[in-house]
Amino acid sequence: MDAKFLQKLLIDVAEGRVTPYEAAEKLKTLPYEDLDFVKIDTHRALRTGRGEVIFGIGKTPEQVAAIMQRLSESTSPVIATKVGPEYYEAAGKAVPEGLTYYDKAKLLVYSEARVRVPSAAHVAVVCAGTADIPIAEEAAVTSEVYGVSVDRFFDVGVSGVHRLLDKIEEIRTAKAIVVVAGMEGALSSVIGGLVEVPVIAVPTSIGYGASMGGLTALLAMLNSCSLGVSVVNIDNGFGAGFLASLIVQGK
Amino acid sequence: MDAKFLQKLLIDVAEGRVTPYEAAEKLKTLPYEDLDFVKIDTHRALRTGRGEVIFGIGKTPEQVAAIMQRLSESTSPVIATKVGPEYYEAAGKAVPEGLTYYDKAKLLVYSEARVRVPSAAHVAVVCAGTADIPIAEEAAVTSEVYGVSVDRFFDVGVSGVHRLLDKIEEIRTAKAIVVVAGMEGALSSVIGGLVEVPVIAVPTSIGYGASMGGLTALLAMLNSCSLGVSVVNIDNGFGAGFLASLIVQGK
Amino acid sequence: MDAKFLQKLLIDVAEGRVTPYEAAEKLKTLPYEDLDFVKIDTHRALRTGRGEVIFGIGKTPEQVAAIMQRLSESTSPVIATKVGPEYYEAAGKAVPEGLTYYDKAKLLVYSEARVRVPSAAHVAVVCAGTADIPIAEEAAVTSEVYGVSVDRFFDVGVSGVHRLLDKIEEIRTAKAIVVVAGMEGALSSVIGGLVEVPVIAVPTSIGYGASMGGLTALLAMLNSCSLGVSVVNIDNGFGAGFLASLIVQGK
Amino acid sequence: MDAKFLQKLLIDVAEGRVTPYEAAEKLKTLPYEDLDFVKIDTHRALRTGRGEVIFGIGKTPEQVAAIMQRLSESTSPVIATKVGPEYYEAAGKAVPEGLTYYDKAKLLVYSEARVRVPSAAHVAVVCAGTADIPIAEEAAVTSEVYGVSVDRFFDVGVSGVHRLLDKIEEIRTAKAIVVVAGMEGALSSVIGGLVEVPVIAVPTSIGYGASMGGLTALLAMLNSCSLGVSVVNIDNGFGAGFLASLIVQGK
Amino acid sequence: MDAKFLQKLLIDVAEGRVTPYEAAEKLKTLPYEDLDFVKIDTHRALRTGRGEVIFGIGKTPEQVAAIMQRLSESTSPVIATKVGPEYYEAAGKAVPEGLTYYDKAKLLVYSEARVRVPSAAHVAVVCAGTADIPIAEEAAVTSEVYGVSVDRFFDVGVSGVHRLLDKIEEIRTAKAIVVVAGMEGALSSVIGGLVEVPVIAVPTSIGYGASMGGLTALLAMLNSCSLGVSVVNIDNGFGAGFLASLIVQGK
Amino acid sequence: MDAKFLQKLLIDVAEGRVTPYEAAEKLKTLPYEDLDFVKIDTHRALRTGRGEVIFGIGKTPEQVAAIMQRLSESTSPVIATKVGPEYYEAAGKAVPEGLTYYDKAKLLVYSEARVRVPSAAHVAVVCAGTADIPIAEEAAVTSEVYGVSVDRFFDVGVSGVHRLLDKIEEIRTAKAIVVVAGMEGALSSVIGGLVEVPVIAVPTSIGYGASMGGLTALLAMLNSCSLGVSVVNIDNGFGAGFLASLIVQGK
Amino acid sequence: MDAKFLQKLLIDVAEGRVTPYEAAEKLKTLPYEDLDFVKIDTHRALRTGRGEVIFGIGKTPEQVAAIMQRLSESTSPVIATKVGPEYYEAAGKAVPEGLTYYDKAKLLVYSEARVRVPSAAHVAVVCAGTADIPIAEEAAVTSEVYGVSVDRFFDVGVSGVHRLLDKIEEIRTAKAIVVVAGMEGALSSVIGGLVEVPVIAVPTSIGYGASMGGLTALLAMLNSCSLGVSVVNIDNGFGAGFLASLIVQGK
Amino acid sequence: MDAKFLQKLLIDVAEGRVTPYEAAEKLKTLPYEDLDFVKIDTHRALRTGRGEVIFGIGKTPEQVAAIMQRLSESTSPVIATKVGPEYYEAAGKAVPEGLTYYDKAKLLVYSEARVRVPSAAHVAVVCAGTADIPIAEEAAVTSEVYGVSVDRFFDVGVSGVHRLLDKIEEIRTAKAIVVVAGMEGALSSVIGGLVEVPVIAVPTSIGYGASMGGLTALLAMLNSCSLGVSVVNIDNGFGAGFLASLIVQGK
Repeated sequence: MDAKFLQKLLIDVAEGRVTPYEAAEKLKTLPYEDLDFVKIDTHRALRTGRGEVIFGIGKTPEQVAAIMQRLSESTSPVIATKVGPEYYEAAGKAVPEGLTYYDKAKLLVYSEARVRVPSAAHVAVVCAGTADIPIAEEAAVTSEVYGVSVDRFFDVGVSGVHRLLDKIEEIRTAKAIVVVAGMEGALSSVIGGLVEVPVIAVPTSIGYGASMGGLTALLAMLNSCSLGVSVVNIDNGFGAGFLASLIVQGK
Repeated sequence: MDAKFLQKLLIDVAEGRVTPYEAAEKLKTLPYEDLDFVKIDTHRALRTGRGEVIFGIGKTPEQVAAIMQRLSESTSPVIATKVGPEYYEAAGKAVPEGLTYYDKAKLLVYSEARVRVPSAAHVAVVCAGTADIPIAEEAAVTSEVYGVSVDRFFDVGVSGVHRLLDKIEEIRTAKAIVVVAGMEGALSSVIGGLVEVPVIAVPTSIGYGASMGGLTALLAMLNSCSLGVSVVNIDNGFGAGFLASLIVQGK
Repeated sequence: MDAKFLQKLLIDVAEGRVTPYEAAEKLKTLPYEDLDFVKIDTHRALRTGRGEVIFGIGKTPEQVAAIMQRLSESTSPVIATKVGPEYYEAAGKAVPEGLTYYDKAKLLVYSEARVRVPSAAHVAVVCAGTADIPIAEEAAVTSEVYGVSVDRFFDVGVSGVHRLLDKIEEIRTAKAIVVVAGMEGALSSVIGGLVEVPVIAVPTSIGYGASMGGLTALLAMLNSCSLGVSVVNIDNGFGAGFLASLIVQGK
Repeated sequence: MDAKFLQKLLIDVAEGRVTPYEAAEKLKTLPYEDLDFVKIDTHRALRTGRGEVIFGIGKTPEQVAAIMQRLSESTSPVIATKVGPEYYEAAGKAVPEGLTYYDKAKLLVYSEARVRVPSAAHVAVVCAGTADIPIAEEAAVTSEVYGVSVDRFFDVGVSGVHRLLDKIEEIRTAKAIVVVAGMEGALSSVIGGLVEVPVIAVPTSIGYGASMGGLTALLAMLNSCSLGVSVVNIDNGFGAGFLASLIVQGK
Repeated sequence: MDAKFLQKLLIDVAEGRVTPYEAAEKLKTLPYEDLDFVKIDTHRALRTGRGEVIFGIGKTPEQVAAIMQRLSESTSPVIATKVGPEYYEAAGKAVPEGLTYYDKAKLLVYSEARVRVPSAAHVAVVCAGTADIPIAEEAAVTSEVYGVSVDRFFDVGVSGVHRLLDKIEEIRTAKAIVVVAGMEGALSSVIGGLVEVPVIAVPTSIGYGASMGGLTALLAMLNSCSLGVSVVNIDNGFGAGFLASLIVQGK
Repeated sequence: MDAKFLQKLLIDVAEGRVTPYEAAEKLKTLPYEDLDFVKIDTHRALRTGRGEVIFGIGKTPEQVAAIMQRLSESTSPVIATKVGPEYYEAAGKAVPEGLTYYDKAKLLVYSEARVRVPSAAHVAVVCAGTADIPIAEEAAVTSEVYGVSVDRFFDVGVSGVHRLLDKIEEIRTAKAIVVVAGMEGALSSVIGGLVEVPVIAVPTSIGYGASMGGLTALLAMLNSCSLGVSVVNIDNGFGAGFLASLIVQGK
Repeated sequence: MDAKFLQKLLIDVAEGRVTPYEAAEKLKTLPYEDLDFVKIDTHRALRTGRGEVIFGIGKTPEQVAAIMQRLSESTSPVIATKVGPEYYEAAGKAVPEGLTYYDKAKLLVYSEARVRVPSAAHVAVVCAGTADIPIAEEAAVTSEVYGVSVDRFFDVGVSGVHRLLDKIEEIRTAKAIVVVAGMEGALSSVIGGLVEVPVIAVPTSIGYGASMGGLTALLAMLNSCSLGVSVVNIDNGFGAGFLASLIVQGK
Repeated sequence: MDAKFLQKLLIDVAEGRVTPYEAAEKLKTLPYEDLDFVKIDTHRALRTGRGEVIFGIGKTPEQVAAIMQRLSESTSPVIATKVGPEYYEAAGKAVPEGLTYYDKAKLLVYSEARVRVPSAAHVAVVCAGTADIPIAEEAAVTSEVYGVSVDRFFDVGVSGVHRLLDKIEEIRTAKAIVVVAGMEGALSSVIGGLVEVPVIAVPTSIGYGASMGGLTALLAMLNSCSLGVSVVNIDNGFGAGFLASLIVQGK
C-alpha cells in the first residue's frame, strides 16, 4: 500500500463508494509490507544522512562494486570497509565519479560533493604505534566522512606514559576519544582515567602468541578499571569512528 | 490506535467531518504501537495454543508464582522450567487450580483441563543413564504437555551398542527423536545413522574434567557425521521437547 | 550367511541330515556379519531414496571423483559438499552423465533423471546478506535435490528489522525455516519469535575479530530465547537443507 | 611543593636571598609528587562532580564502609556497586547521613542533598525480562545519580519483536540507550538497527549451558551488525549507566 | 527369542511340523533383540570377569545403592567411583555383604570373596604430592580390584627430579605406569622418557589460576615429547587403573 | 669419568698410590656427567631396538636429512614423521641405503635390513573414512616398522554402526586397537564398548566449524563413557602406533 | 650407599681384600639412589637457606600441620601458602614454637629465630587497590621471610596514573618490582615503561564477567608492550615474592 | 619549557622584571610537556644505554628501515625483532654502517662500535631441540647485544632427562637462565627444580594439535611447581633475553 492507494481509499470513503466498515476491514487485512507510511521506515540512510555501509570481508571486488553502484544512486555517503586497492579499481568502473580510496584506512568512499562547515567539536583518535595505524586511520577517516573533525595522536603508548601525558591536554579537548591498541590493550584504561569524555576502545589483532588475534586486548579493554570506556569488535575502526561521530554530533 | 478509533476516523471521513487528506496525514503519523490490527500480533500464545514459558533460572519462587498467575488468566498451558518444589509451593498459593509439578523434570505446569485425543505420531526420548534422566524427563514431559505421546528409552548408551540395537526398531517408529547425552555425546551420531527422522540432540552437563560442563558433548553433537541431527543448548530438555512436538504435530 | 545358506541348513534339518541341536549350535556361532537377514540393514541409502553424501573437505578431486563413480552405480542422488569447480571437472571424467555443479553452493550432485511433482509444502531459506549466500545456497540446493521446493529470502537482517517484517508473512508459509547468519547470529532468535514452525539455525564463519570463525554466532544461536530453534555446525548448509527436507517430507 | 612554597621561593629570588641558579636547581630536583600546580591533577572527582566509585566485589562490608566514610568527607556522590543490604547496614554506622540503598540495583549511594533540574535529554534503559532487571536497574539508578532522567523498558525481547516495535518510538526519544541482555544478546543488534543514537550494550550472566556466564552475549554484542553499538563488561550496569549519563550530559 | 525357542523351532522342522521355508521366514522377521545367541552379547561383564562400574557423579546415595544391589546379584566386582562415605552407608543397607569402601580413593567396591594369586607383573602408580593422592589411590585400588599388584610412588615430582631418579629403577620394573599429576603435568613426560613401558597419564584438577581445573595439565600431557604416553580424562583415576590392569593382564 | 678412569683410580688405590680417603673425595666431587656407568643410560634407543624419532614439523628437508644421517650411523630404525616427499629426496642424498618413504603416512624410515618373524599378536587400526586415512596409515606403518602386524579397517564409522558390527569380530582379535576419528570422535567410545583390549584414540583435525581443528574430537574421546580408552594428541598417528606396538610386544 | 660404605670399599681395595675390578663392578651396579655423594643432592632446601614450601590448596589443616612438623625438624624457613587461620591453629599443636601467621597474606611461616642484617637492596610491591592487597601481601611477606626488605605501594592504579607518577621515584629505587593487578592488568605495562629493573607481574582473580577469573589480566600482562616484564600464575603472590627476593639477593 | 627558559624567568624575577606572583602563575600554567627538567624523562633509551626496540611484526621492510634510520641517529643499539633478510636489505640502504643481521634469531641490530669487557656473570639459554632454536637464538643474541655473555645448551629435553643432568652443573653457573620449550613446556619446571637462580620461561609455538600454537606450553609454564620461574609471551625470545641481561647486569 502506498500513499496513493491510501488517499484513493479515503476519497472513496469520503465520496461514499466505500463504507467506513469496509475500509476498516481493508486496512486491517493489508499485509504489513504495504504499510509504507509507517513512521519507522527502512530509509534510515537517506533520512539521517549517514548513508550505507558495505562490509568488504568475504565479498569480491565485483560484488562490492555492484552494491556500491546501486546504493550510490539513492544515498550518500556509501562506505566500503576493509577493502584493498583492487576494490577501488573495480568500483571505479561502476561508479565513475565521487569515489575516494583511503589507502591506509582501507576504506572506499562514495560521496557527493558537499561543503562542510568544520565542526568545533571534534574526535581524538589515539594509538600507540605504527602497526595500529591502519585501524586508527579507519576510525579517523570514518569520523571525517561523517563530517566530524579528527585530531590524530599516533605515537603514544603505555610503555612511555610520559609521551602520553605530554599530549593529554590536547586529547582532552575532544568530545569523544577513540583509543586503538593491540597487545595488552592498556591504553584505553590509562586514557580513560585522565579524561571526562566517552572513550571508545578498539582492540587490534596486532601482536603474537598469547595476544590471540586481539582477544587479549579485547578482554583487557572490557575489564578496564577506568570509567566511561566501552569497546567495539577487534579491528573495528569503522564502528568506532561511526560511534564517535554520533556522540559528537548527537548533542 | 484501536479498532474503535479507526472506525470513528473513517466515519468522520464518510460524513465529511474530516477530509481524506487530513485522515491520510493522521494515519501516517500514528505511532506504530497503536496499529493493533496489524496481522502479526503478539498474541501468539493464545492463537497457537502453545501458551507461555517461564525460564526459572535467576527468578525467585515468588517471581515465578506471580508471573504464572498473570499468564494463567489468559493462556494455557504455562510452563515454568528448571524449578524446584519450593516453586510449586509458592505457585500453589497464587494459582490454586490446574497446577502440576513434575518432580524429575523440574517442570511446573499450569494447564486447563482438556480431553486429549492420543496422537498416533509420537516422539522418542532416548538417553544413556541415570544421570541424564532429569533432562530427558524435561524433554518428555514437555512434549506430552503439548499433546504428543512419548516413548522413553532411558537405558541405552554407546558403550553397549547392542542394548541400543535391541531397541532401535521401536525407536524408529517415532516421528522425531530427542537424544539426551552427556560426556562424549556420541549417542546422537549413532542413532542419527540408524534412523530416517529428525534427531534433536541435547547435550547435558553430566561429566567431569574435560567434559567442561557439557561443552564437549555440545561440540561433539554439532560435529555429528550422521545426517538429520541438530542441537539445542546444554541441558535444554524443554527446548528439545518443544521442537519435537512441533515437528510431530506437522506444522 | 546368506538366505541360501539358511534355507539349505533348515532343509538339512528337515531331511534329517542335521539334528536340531547341531543346527542351533551352528546358528549361535555364525559370525554376526553373515546375518544378512537382520532387518536393520545398511542399505539405508537405497531404501530411503536419500542417496549418499561425500564430504569434500580433506579429499582431492580425484578421490571425490572415484567415490562418486562407485556410489553412482548403485544409488541416487549422490552429493559432494564444499567442492570447487575442479572437482566437477574431475568427476566429469568418471561420471559422464547426470552430474550438476552448483556454483554458489559449491555442491556437486549426481542424480538420475526423474520427474518431480512439485511439493506444496516448502522450506524457506533466510539469510542477511551477500557474504552468507554461499552457505544459504548450499542449504537451498540440498533441499531441492531431495525434492522439496525452496523460497529464498537473502536480504533480511536484524539491523533492519523492518525489511524482515515485510517478508515475514511469506516466510511463515514454509513448513520449516533455515536461517543462515554470521556475526552475532541474532536472526534465528528474531525469526524464531515470529513463526510457529521448526527453525534450523546455521552459523557462518563470516565476520572478523571476536566472531572467532563463527563460534560466536554458533553460541548465540544455541542460547536463543525463542522456541523451536535448533542449530547445526558452522557453515553446515548441507546439514540444514537435509534436515529441513526431512521435516517437510516427514509428515 | 605547594603553591606557598613556590611563592616563597620566588620571593626569595626576587629579594636576592636565593640566586636564580639555585632556584632553578631546586625546581629541577623537586620530587614530582610535590608539583601540585600541574594542571592534570588527581582531584578529578571533585572538579567534575562525578565523585568516586567503590567496586564492592572482593571487599567486606567493613572495608566498603571505611572507604565510603573517608571519601564522603571530600566528595559527592560516592557509589558502591554490587553490594548487598549488609553493606548498607555497615556503612550506616560510618556515614550516618546522605546514604541511600537501591535494593534491586545493589547500589549504595552517598550523596549530599542537592536540587536537580530535571534534564530534558534522557537515557533509555531496555531489557528483556525479569532476570536482567537487577543489572538494568544498576544502569538506570547510576544515570539518575549523575543527574540524568531515565526511561525504563523492562519487558521487550527479540523473541517477541513486536512488543519492542510498540515501544520503539518512545525509546528513540532518548539521547543514549542502554541495552541489557543475557542469553544470545541479540537485543542490542535489533535496537541498534532501529535508532540513531549511541547504544551501550551490557551482556548479563543470565542463562545456562552454552551461555558461559555471559560470554556468549558479550561476543554476540561485539559482533553486532548494527552501527553505533559498543559494549561494556558482563553485568557492568554501573559502567553503562555512567557512560550513558556522560554522553547525554554532552560534556 | 531365547535358546529354548530356537531349539523348539528346529525340532519342529526336524519333525515336519514346520517347513524349512516357514522357519527361514520366521528367523528373518524375528526382532533383533530376541537374538540372544548372537555371539556379541551384552553380558560382557560376566564373561570377562571385569564386572560393572557405576559413575557416582550426579547420582544420589540411594540411586547408587539400588544400582549396586541389582548388579551385585549377577556380576562381580561392582565398582562405584567418586563416592563419599554416605554412599557406603546407603549401599550397606542394600548389599549387606561383600562391600569395601576405600576412603582415600573414594571407591565403593562390591566383590565376592575370592583367592587371588599375586601377579608377578604389576602396575606402578606415581604422583607428585599430597594433593594428587586421592586420584592416585583411585587408580591404584582399581588395578588391585581387578587383580593386579600395584607399587605406589607418591612423593616424586619434577621440581625435585633426583628424588624421581632415585626411584626410577623400581618404577621401571612395572609393566605399565600410571602417572598422576596436576599443575603443569610435566611428570608424565619425564617418566615417559625414562621407561620403555606404556605410560597412562592422569591430569588432576589440583592447582589454581591458569591450571584451569586441570585443563593445563591435560593439554601438556597430550603434547608430551616422550613416546609411549597416552592420556585419560582429568581426575579419571579409575579409567587409568582399569586400562593399566588391562595392559598388564595381557588380555 | 669413564670406566677406564674408574679402574685406574681403583688400581691406584690397590697399589697404594692413592689412599682410600683421597679416592673417596675424588669420587664425591666428580661431576655427574662423567658417571657413565650409571645404569640408567641415555642409550635407550640402541638397547631397546626402538631407534630414534625425528618430528618433521618445523624442520627443513636439509635439517631432517642431516639428523637422519647422523642417527642412522648408530641406531635403527630412524623414523621421521609428518614429512613430504621433498624430505625423502633430501635424505636420499645423505643416507643412500635403507630408506623407505611411506606416501600416505608421510613417514620416512631408515631401517637396516632384517628378517622379521611375523608376530601372532597384532594391532588393529580403525578409521571411518577417506579423510582420516593419512593419520591411520601413520599409525599402522609405525606399528609395522616396530615389528608388529597390523590389520586395517578403514571404512567403518558410527553413522553406519552396522558396517562396524560386521567387522567387530575381526577387530576383536587384535591385542591393541588404534581408533582414528575426526569430527565428533564417537568411534572410540563405540569400539571401546565392544572390545576387551586397550583402545588408543587418535583425534584428527578433519572437520570444519565447531570441530575446531580436532579439539572437539579430542575432548569427546577423553570423555568416553567406555572403559579401556586413552587418548593421544590430535593427528598423532605415530604416537598411537608406537604405543600400540609397545602394548603388543610388552607381554 | 653412604660415605661409610664407600670408604670401607676403598679400604678393602687398598688392603687387597677386594680387587679393583670387583670394586669397579660393584660401583657400576650400585642402585642410583644410594649415590648420596652425588653433588646435585636433593637437600637444596638446607644448602640454599630457602627452606621448603607447602602449597595449602587441596590439603587439610591436619595435613599441613603434619608436613610442617616434619620439615621444621630439618630446615628453616617452612612456608605454607593460601592457608586460613584454622591451619595456624592446627599447626600450633604440632609445631609449638617459631610459627607466625600472616593474616592478610594467608601465609603460615615456621622460622628459627635469627638476626637479619637489613638489606640495602629491596623489593617494591605495587598494587592498585583494596581487593588486590591479599595477594600483594603474600608477595611482600614472602620476600621479607627470605630476608629482603619490602616497600609497599598499595594505592596506585592506571585509572589514576598521576597517583602512580607521584610514587614512581620511590618505586624506582627498588632492585625488583612486583606488580599485582586484576581486571585489565595494565599496571605492569605502565610501570614496566617507567623503570629499568625486572618487573614481576602477578595477575589476580579479582574482577567479574570477562575477567574470567584472572585470565584476562594474565594474558594482558604476557602481552605487555613494556620490556623487562615477566609473569607468574594468577594469584601466585608467593612465587613472585620468592623470585623477587632471588633477583635482589643477586648471589 | 627548557632549562634556558627557566633560568631566564628566574633571572627576570631576580632582576625585578617579573614579580614572584607573575612567575608563579607562569609556572602553574605551563603545559606539562614543557617540563623537560622533570626527573622522569622519556629519554630512557639514551640514559640506560639499552637503546630502542622495533617489533617487526605487522611492519613492512621499508617502515622498519625508516624507523631504524631515525632511531640510529640518537641512540644505540637499535634492535628490530622477527624480521627476515629482506628487512636487512631494506635497512642497509637507510643505515649503511653498524648493521648486523642475525639469521637464526631473525634479529636486525644497529650498534655503534664499542669495546666490551666480557662479563663474568652470564646467562644460560637452554632449549630442547632443532625447532626451538630460532627463539632460543633470539634470546641469546639479545642478551649478547646488551653486553652479557651467553652459554647455549640446545640439545637437552625432558624426554631424555639424563642429557639435561649431564649439563646441569654448567647451567647452574649462570646468573639467570632462559628456558625455551614448545609442546608440553615441562623443561622449565625440571630446570627450575635444579637451580637457584631466576628462570625465565619462553613457550614456543612449536607443536601441533593440542599444542594450540604454544598456549599449552605457556599455561604449563605458568603452573610450574618449581620456584623461581616466570614466563614471557609465546615466542618472545627477545623479551626473555632482555630480562635476563637486566637481571645479570642489575647487581
